Amino acid sequence: MTVGHDETVTDAAYLDALVTAEVALVRAYRELGLAPAEAVDEIETEFGWRSGLRGCPDHGVDLAALTAAAVAGGNPVIPLVGRLKERVGAGSRTWIHRGATSQDIVDTAAMLVARAATSRIAASLAHAEVLLRSLARSRRDEVAAARTLTQHAVPTTVGLRAAGWLRGVARARERVEDAQHRLPAQLGGAAGTLASFTEVAGTEAAADLPAAFAHELGLAAPDAPWHTNRWPITELGDALVQAVDAVGKIATDVATLSRTEIGELAEGSGGGSSAMPQKRNPAASVLIRSAALRAPQLGATLHLASALAADERPDGAWHAEWPVLRELLRLALGATAHAATLVAGLHVDTDAVERNLASTGGLIVAERLSVVLGPVLGSARVSDLVADAAGGADLAAALTALPEVGSVAAERGVAPPAFVADLLDPARYIGLAGRLVDDAVAPEASHREDNA
Amino acid sequence: MTVGHDETVTDAAYLDALVTAEVALVRAYRELGLAPAEAVDEIETEFGWRSGLRGCPDHGVDLAALTAAAVAGGNPVIPLVGRLKERVGAGSRTWIHRGATSQDIVDTAAMLVARAATSRIAASLAHAEVLLRSLARSRRDEVAAARTLTQHAVPTTVGLRAAGWLRGVARARERVEDAQHRLPAQLGGAAGTLASFTEVAGTEAAADLPAAFAHELGLAAPDAPWHTNRWPITELGDALVQAVDAVGKIATDVATLSRTEIGELAEGSGGGSSAMPQKRNPAASVLIRSAALRAPQLGATLHLASALAADERPDGAWHAEWPVLRELLRLALGATAHAATLVAGLHVDTDAVERNLASTGGLIVAERLSVVLGPVLGSARVSDLVADAAGGADLAAALTALPEVGSVAAERGVAPPAFVADLLDPARYIGLAGRLVDDAVAPEASHREDNA
Amino acid sequence: MTVGHDETVTDAAYLDALVTAEVALVRAYRELGLAPAEAVDEIETEFGWRSGLRGCPDHGVDLAALTAAAVAGGNPVIPLVGRLKERVGAGSRTWIHRGATSQDIVDTAAMLVARAATSRIAASLAHAEVLLRSLARSRRDEVAAARTLTQHAVPTTVGLRAAGWLRGVARARERVEDAQHRLPAQLGGAAGTLASFTEVAGTEAAADLPAAFAHELGLAAPDAPWHTNRWPITELGDALVQAVDAVGKIATDVATLSRTEIGELAEGSGGGSSAMPQKRNPAASVLIRSAALRAPQLGATLHLASALAADERPDGAWHAEWPVLRELLRLALGATAHAATLVAGLHVDTDAVERNLASTGGLIVAERLSVVLGPVLGSARVSDLVADAAGGADLAAALTALPEVGSVAAERGVAPPAFVADLLDPARYIGLAGRLVDDAVAPEASHREDNA
Amino acid sequence: MTVGHDETVTDAAYLDALVTAEVALVRAYRELGLAPAEAVDEIETEFGWRSGLRGCPDHGVDLAALTAAAVAGGNPVIPLVGRLKERVGAGSRTWIHRGATSQDIVDTAAMLVARAATSRIAASLAHAEVLLRSLARSRRDEVAAARTLTQHAVPTTVGLRAAGWLRGVARARERVEDAQHRLPAQLGGAAGTLASFTEVAGTEAAADLPAAFAHELGLAAPDAPWHTNRWPITELGDALVQAVDAVGKIATDVATLSRTEIGELAEGSGGGSSAMPQKRNPAASVLIRSAALRAPQLGATLHLASALAADERPDGAWHAEWPVLRELLRLALGATAHAATLVAGLHVDTDAVERNLASTGGLIVAERLSVVLGPVLGSARVSDLVADAAGGADLAAALTALPEVGSVAAERGVAPPAFVADLLDPARYIGLAGRLVDDAVAPEASHREDNA
Repeated sequence: MTVGHDETVTDAAYLDALVTAEVALVRAYRELGLAPAEAVDEIETEFGWRSGLRGCPDHGVDLAALTAAAVAGGNPVIPLVGRLKERVGAGSRTWIHRGATSQDIVDTAAMLVARAATSRIAASLAHAEVLLRSLARSRRDEVAAARTLTQHAVPTTVGLRAAGWLRGVARARERVEDAQHRLPAQLGGAAGTLASFTEVAGTEAAADLPAAFAHELGLAAPDAPWHTNRWPITELGDALVQAVDAVGKIATDVATLSRTEIGELAEGSGGGSSAMPQKRNPAASVLIRSAALRAPQLGATLHLASALAADERPDGAWHAEWPVLRELLRLALGATAHAATLVAGLHVDTDAVERNLASTGGLIVAERLSVVLGPVLGSARVSDLVADAAGGADLAAALTALPEVGSVAAERGVAPPAFVADLLDPARYIGLAGRLVDDAVAPEASHREDNA
Repeated sequence: MTVGHDETVTDAAYLDALVTAEVALVRAYRELGLAPAEAVDEIETEFGWRSGLRGCPDHGVDLAALTAAAVAGGNPVIPLVGRLKERVGAGSRTWIHRGATSQDIVDTAAMLVARAATSRIAASLAHAEVLLRSLARSRRDEVAAARTLTQHAVPTTVGLRAAGWLRGVARARERVEDAQHRLPAQLGGAAGTLASFTEVAGTEAAADLPAAFAHELGLAAPDAPWHTNRWPITELGDALVQAVDAVGKIATDVATLSRTEIGELAEGSGGGSSAMPQKRNPAASVLIRSAALRAPQLGATLHLASALAADERPDGAWHAEWPVLRELLRLALGATAHAATLVAGLHVDTDAVERNLASTGGLIVAERLSVVLGPVLGSARVSDLVADAAGGADLAAALTALPEVGSVAAERGVAPPAFVADLLDPARYIGLAGRLVDDAVAPEASHREDNA
Repeated sequence: MTVGHDETVTDAAYLDALVTAEVALVRAYRELGLAPAEAVDEIETEFGWRSGLRGCPDHGVDLAALTAAAVAGGNPVIPLVGRLKERVGAGSRTWIHRGATSQDIVDTAAMLVARAATSRIAASLAHAEVLLRSLARSRRDEVAAARTLTQHAVPTTVGLRAAGWLRGVARARERVEDAQHRLPAQLGGAAGTLASFTEVAGTEAAADLPAAFAHELGLAAPDAPWHTNRWPITELGDALVQAVDAVGKIATDVATLSRTEIGELAEGSGGGSSAMPQKRNPAASVLIRSAALRAPQLGATLHLASALAADERPDGAWHAEWPVLRELLRLALGATAHAATLVAGLHVDTDAVERNLASTGGLIVAERLSVVLGPVLGSARVSDLVADAAGGADLAAALTALPEVGSVAAERGVAPPAFVADLLDPARYIGLAGRLVDDAVAPEASHREDNA
Repeated sequence: MTVGHDETVTDAAYLDALVTAEVALVRAYRELGLAPAEAVDEIETEFGWRSGLRGCPDHGVDLAALTAAAVAGGNPVIPLVGRLKERVGAGSRTWIHRGATSQDIVDTAAMLVARAATSRIAASLAHAEVLLRSLARSRRDEVAAARTLTQHAVPTTVGLRAAGWLRGVARARERVEDAQHRLPAQLGGAAGTLASFTEVAGTEAAADLPAAFAHELGLAAPDAPWHTNRWPITELGDALVQAVDAVGKIATDVATLSRTEIGELAEGSGGGSSAMPQKRNPAASVLIRSAALRAPQLGATLHLASALAADERPDGAWHAEWPVLRELLRLALGATAHAATLVAGLHVDTDAVERNLASTGGLIVAERLSVVLGPVLGSARVSDLVADAAGGADLAAALTALPEVGSVAAERGVAPPAFVADLLDPARYIGLAGRLVDDAVAPEASHREDNA
């Protein structure tokens, strides 16, 4: 069954946006001195216009009846306009939908829905950022095994892993916000020439109308009608997919590190299993990952619809777009909200982190041995030592016994055992992990990225 | 067989980039005062480093042999490093690939290849823009039928159609250039901590090394290692898909408008058919459209690889990325180059444009009749008149005979026949088409978009 | 807003299927002599089991309340089982969901929904086949222009075009029906070992239970649990995409051939436009094409979920699957239903077909000239003649005047004018079009394909 | 760089197939008594036709020169035909490519390449099946932890996991073989009417020609030309994606179970790391998974090209198809070959399997406790016991001390300690795992599936 964070992308929200767009058009006509104030007042009152970009949530149009009518006609705007006109007097009626084409209203409503949704998505990402910044800072120096191709590789830190997640989320938030601020109103008439508006309002007023319409709605004024120039949609779609990617990366890591055998992480409120009460499922990670597997293909469909947007309105591509954008908004809403919750409740099991780090008996610093001892021992001998250690030999003892190691230790002015102990200490081989965390969590980090 | 514009994304170009990245790392070590000048000199000389970001195209590494070695190991860097080291003395050898992981070199080389390719793509788009600007300007007032859902709808102009194409191409070029300028070098060592570099160079020099490395290559300095933070790849991919979309829209329109029955457009050098010499195939449009059908799914794969980039190097996602990015670069190179050629040779058949516009006997201004006469005749009567005309009736005569039309004409101070003639003249119902063209072709238009 | 043919894939239908699966499991236990008859009777009565594979549509579980509970737990089965148990006595309660895991019920319910949907899809395709067979037969010999790369190429027939559509639809129906007949019940317990069922019922009965369960539901008995062997889903998905492809091809051709300038086809009840009453939009084609642009990427997501179905239940891939399958079912339901309607109302404008065919002044048989006259005139001269004709020259006169043409005519025993007239007659150059139609519409055609 | 198992899908292989198709057409003309034997002999000799479906691998056409010529024309067939004709006498020349359109040759060549590739793919899958059958049989009773949502769930066996892989591979092989056997030759002329062949050969011979042509090539005789009926391509594509899915599932499990902390599986010859010699990377799994992330989107593109195959040859969709099919063949070749190698070398670490199974202190049978003791203790008390055990309590002792447990033990006629020991023994809770393995590995299993 349909389960999800979709309050902002429901059929009802979409209907609200359609009505809001229709009323905003009438208001725009008034702003330009065309529609009489009394007609606009009647319309605003009848459909419950609210100031502050809150639109017409109490418009009184019945969703179910309109949906039924839309099925017959393939388009909700035509029956909607009929219903709106019925409810006002003749003097007002003439200004409703005046000069507009269905696509003007549908595209604009889509942008209104997208604005509400992207606002929530950006907020969820921002919330996750705050939490990740805190996590990265508090775990800045907690050494952990880094894994490449599923295998322990070298040490890293829990904080650096969180800093990486943070950077991805911060970047995605920027992209979502950028897309949000660019969401344009649509107003062009049947083929994007604004001819009908010119007929109604004259050339100058028609030229001003799109910006006035956009202003009423708090959307960006369009450079030009974009009926078959769909990059506003694909750029939005790309940003949404990027948001899902960013939290998908987190979820992928959390799911892995929550594995029974690894146990370094656990979600705060793991999904339960009635029959297997011992399980602590990474439930949010699973939901986020399911979104991450779906979102890219939805983004691809938006691009196809853009490239194939034939003529002045295409024979299928535009119709393909809205349900896909809507599902993509829904996925991004859900995935980012789950991500904020996931990070908020994320439990780090320090013991497990340490146990895993130690589990290979020092082999996690094998690369360091190559770097430090390779030049004096040759890489073949280093490999042999590592292989022996992988087979159970005591690596510290073997190293300490080597005269070449003694020489290097002497050069550095330390006793061989201390030198070897330091050499094998994962905490001594984390490079710039701390700095990279500091950079990521610094207040100026996000600022710097804003100007990138 | 493999056919295409892929000079910049060949195996050879990729090998050049790998060698260039390796030499640049040595140069970066020298910049920081670590690698001795004579070692770097030997390496630069041996592998033919050229200044001015031209890299090492004459490196002398045999592609076929390296490819064979890479098949065995799954990675070209390990055998490449072996070959490079063999060719220099011991003092230089130690500085080759020092501290680096294979991914540092592979990712950086990918960015070098992407820079060269995006440079060409942006140039093709810029070329197309110049041509489209000229086309839009010269055809600014040429009235044509606009089509929605395959049917004649209202008038537009050839110039406005070209202006729409121009806007899509200009926007795509901005996105490609933006992505190009962000292409980052990669340098982080096995798990993105730079631990190996710290071991070699100390903390401070290691912290400076990525920017120095990037500087040698003319790439952006990375904020941090991005081994499993793959938005630099997906943002590039999204921009490439957008570029293909923009020219795909043009190709879709050209293919349609080149149809035998429509004939408004023709490609300058249509692909011939040996058996059917009369055919004038829209050959470039066909190739561009084939790219447009493929690119979005490649972009989706890059997003999947980003979202599933597990751990500190993933178990498949990274390996999926490069062949896909490469194919996407190849498609964008080919599609944008074909688009520039297509627009350069595009032929507009003015007669066909006019013939099609006139073919519906005035019905193309039916919307205008609704707008102008609806209020006095009622929409039902307007629909009846239009339906009669669609059935062959003389629309001008019918309108002229109507007393209500006479009244409207009188209001406007014109005789009914002149009023009706104007009403039915498509050239009188193109709204803001001219202004929208002017806006799109104005020099400040691109400037304004740059600052959007 | 949500608009479409989705009665079989609503939340309510899915809930019905979940309850039906739960009751069927109890019935299966009785069949094997385990659950007491009175318990099963109580459960059947309480939840309204109906014989004849009609399941439990009147189960009385409140959808809204269950959906709300499922949001909290991420899974509708756990709260559903609680609600079902509450409504029966203790002796019955113990048999509800006994031994089952949530995935057993969810997967089985998905297969029940898929069966109902595929049944409708196959029926729509079969309906379209009947109509297409009739169309192909009745238009068997109606000569029309064939187009390649948008250009008139050689003659074909309206009937052959319809026969091609028919073959695609017939093949898709076979694939959908094949997938439908393979839809398996799922019963394996938490990890597909049936251990819980073995505990409850003993080894032999547990081994018989999946087939008994499947039998109650009219689904295929599974070879084995398929919790992470998802080819039943991808094979279904592939068949659904193929169905959408098949009708997408029809819609693509109808949209093209309905273009104002071409006008060979028109949908019976084209979507109207309030402002442009003259338009006759190919509304069904547009909707079908929008589905065709979306379905392939949904199919791709199902494959990804299959390939990444880790462990004994995956960390995201399974959750990604059901909404995608559901949307794909919905698209296929809508597209195939629209296709049947489209074909039923399809209007062929014979005049337009003839006019277009004649519009190139005989050039449509240029290939024939190459084949017939190339050997005697050389291909260069044939090309010149064709080029002249494309430029307005009288091809028939030019050919009749050629001595080589006279020779060929003489060989064939006809006068040159008659020979040339025949040579230029499109109806004389349709090859096997008639036979290919006959093959496609023959009753044995579908039979032969069944055994292919 | 390009690395992979692509011998059968190289440019050279494709050129061989093109020449083979051209020669086969001449041979088909001879079979029908049209082309004179001496002409066919000359052509066979000149281009090195070999019997036994081996085609013309020694044709002597220069690949590089032809590729260069094809770039100019966008199609390799036109320059190829020119080159072929140059090399034979006038009497033979006329029979080369006679009546054919480029698509006839390109599609047929694609099918020849696909046949060779699918033959290898099926062989790799069959090889993997043999190995998996052996693995499943030999590990039939080796108990292991089953994991759901990343967490230990209940016991399973190593053999059952292998049996699941086997079933997926066997099913995919069937689908690939089925698709292989259906690969049709293409012969229809410019628009699929065979008009040109009718002109050359008369109606009856033209009707027989496609089957004769297919017979020469060992391809399936087409029901009809399929120039824009592309299900032969999509069905092949779907089967290839399914093959990649099947081995992708194996690779996903192997990668997970090879993790350092899990260690139950290891690839025989793990990819090495120069700097980290201790690593044992699941290299084949990584490559297979990278293919699994890419293949579905390629399959989607084939479907799009099928649905949008407009007219009698489309304006882009056909051109999009072949590079995508080729890449998909390459991915399936590589992934299945790697899978066979992976399974051949797969190492099971029995100690790790046992250690992991035991690591949760009996909690892996928590579900069994619910099933067996839930009815007497109530599920809440069972959950409490499990929670205590998860916290470190001795589960066996706690259970043995419970009077209700004693009662159940008494009913079953065993002493409580023995009863509890049995209850907590994972090997006693594997349900039908053994049977399911036996079913999967039985010789009749594949037979049964063949007839499914």
